[in-house]
Amino acid sequence: MKTFLDCVPCFLKQALGAARMASDDPEAHARVLRTVARAVAEMGMDETPPSMGQVIHRVVREATGVEDPYREVKDHFNALALSMYERLKSMVAESDDPFGTAVRLAVAGNIIDFGVRSDIDEESLERSISESLGWPLEDGALDALRRAVDSADDILYVGDNAGEIVFDRVLIEEMDTDRVTFVVRGAPIINDVTMRDAVEVGMTDIVAVVDNGSDAPGTILSDCSQEFRERFLRADLIIAKGQGNYETLSQAPGRIFFVLKVKCPVIARDIGCEVGAVIVWEREIG
Amino acid sequence: MKTFLDCVPCFLKQALGAARMASDDPEAHARVLRTVARAVAEMGMDETPPSMGQVIHRVVREATGVEDPYREVKDHFNALALSMYERLKSMVAESDDPFGTAVRLAVAGNIIDFGVRSDIDEESLERSISESLGWPLEDGALDALRRAVDSADDILYVGDNAGEIVFDRVLIEEMDTDRVTFVVRGAPIINDVTMRDAVEVGMTDIVAVVDNGSDAPGTILSDCSQEFRERFLRADLIIAKGQGNYETLSQAPGRIFFVLKVKCPVIARDIGCEVGAVIVWEREIG
Repeated sequence: MKTFLDCVPCFLKQALGAARMASDDPEAHARVLRTVARAVAEMGMDETPPSMGQVIHRVVREATGVEDPYREVKDHFNALALSMYERLKSMVAESDDPFGTAVRLAVAGNIIDFGVRSDIDEESLERSISESLGWPLEDGALDALRRAVDSADDILYVGDNAGEIVFDRVLIEEMDTDRVTFVVRGAPIINDVTMRDAVEVGMTDIVAVVDNGSDAPGTILSDCSQEFRERFLRADLIIAKGQGNYETLSQAPGRIFFVLKVKCPVIARDIGCEVGAVIVWEREIG
Repeated sequence: MKTFLDCVPCFLKQALGAARMASDDPEAHARVLRTVARAVAEMGMDETPPSMGQVIHRVVREATGVEDPYREVKDHFNALALSMYERLKSMVAESDDPFGTAVRLAVAGNIIDFGVRSDIDEESLERSISESLGWPLEDGALDALRRAVDSADDILYVGDNAGEIVFDRVLIEEMDTDRVTFVVRGAPIINDVTMRDAVEVGMTDIVAVVDNGSDAPGTILSDCSQEFRERFLRADLIIAKGQGNYETLSQAPGRIFFVLKVKCPVIARDIGCEVGAVIVWEREIG
């Protein structure tokens, strides 16, 4: 997905939020904002929004000297989601449609996205769960994903955020874990999932986990490691979680299901849905 | 009031809204955004937000060739408010406190501010009226303004927006009109009130109307005409409507009452109130 003009004010809002997360120094916040304003003035609109996200958060790291401003946020949400793990497992086990419920929970966890808002808390997460369980999905969407998962030999599950990864684990445990590889970002970026989070929540105990070699808040294949690109092309099914992966993989090769909660009006317009929508969607290759 | 970092993303949002109001050409929108992004990267944060507003809307006019992008909006809201005029007059006449009700209605009209949002409609205006009539004002605020108006010989009523000016007229008609001068902006800026609006709604028939010689969305005295500055200093009471006048006159000399609806979180924090608050406040000179 290309960048829309409406993304531009939001980039500055994100930059300010991240600068405040990284530092208490108003001078550093101003420096970040000015640098990002100059960068957006020059940016190409054909790039995806996560390309600019990558630039923004590099500026934040450089201006504040903080390598991983969201580390506390990530630890907090990993712990919070882990404390919910048994309850999530019961919800799946007791459901008439365990796989479908696990997919809906995985989408619910996608609310934990500090790229969009920085006021996510336990209450928003609980609300996201009940909304997601009741959301009217497109006819056959869950069945299509179920069939794709059942028939695939090599599933690449591209994660999105810390905390959310526990919800992903619950869904992956409904699959044949021998056939699943979980993907994390190559370096800290916003509250996106990294190898440390995969270890923290036990994902590494149940499936293979690989990092993509990139510090973008999405999956910009040209920015990923050669090794990851090859791994991506080898998979026969890709499950891409969240907005950042949607924005960066909507034109990528391969069989891709996008599984996300829509949190921004630009993506809602691109998909043709409302903000808040629960999306389980197999991208048709045009 | 100085500019806060939180204003910066909002400047770009305003620029995009204004560019879209002025032109259907996406190239022009992008040009405006890039130019404004460069300008905010260089701006001094000690200036007031309307200083940047002035820059933004000059960029919009230059990039689109449209001198008065909000002309239709202004005509629409002047006509809408005029169609409500008799009803507003009855509300005042039938009230136990006609002056107080007129003040509350004048604040209600301040919702018609396209600097903050561009989705104001008749419904938002009606909602603003009922909220404003019921808002718990600070004890004695209306009495203080009433006493100030009764004892002043030379009242400068600094208007804010088109449409809203009809609500201002209803309030001014509760004063001795011989002692009131209404102030409009010196040139089109957003949907701020200009001489043309004062004529359209009959304000020029009831009081003296002067323009301030400036195209800022507020009253930046140093940017106003020499004549207006002298006029301002001569007044013994200033009633300053709306956010833009609050932002630019909060440090100005003279006896000033700020009368506004708070529409942005930065101003709410500066005043110490919530977004949506109805403010009738005599600024104490420190």
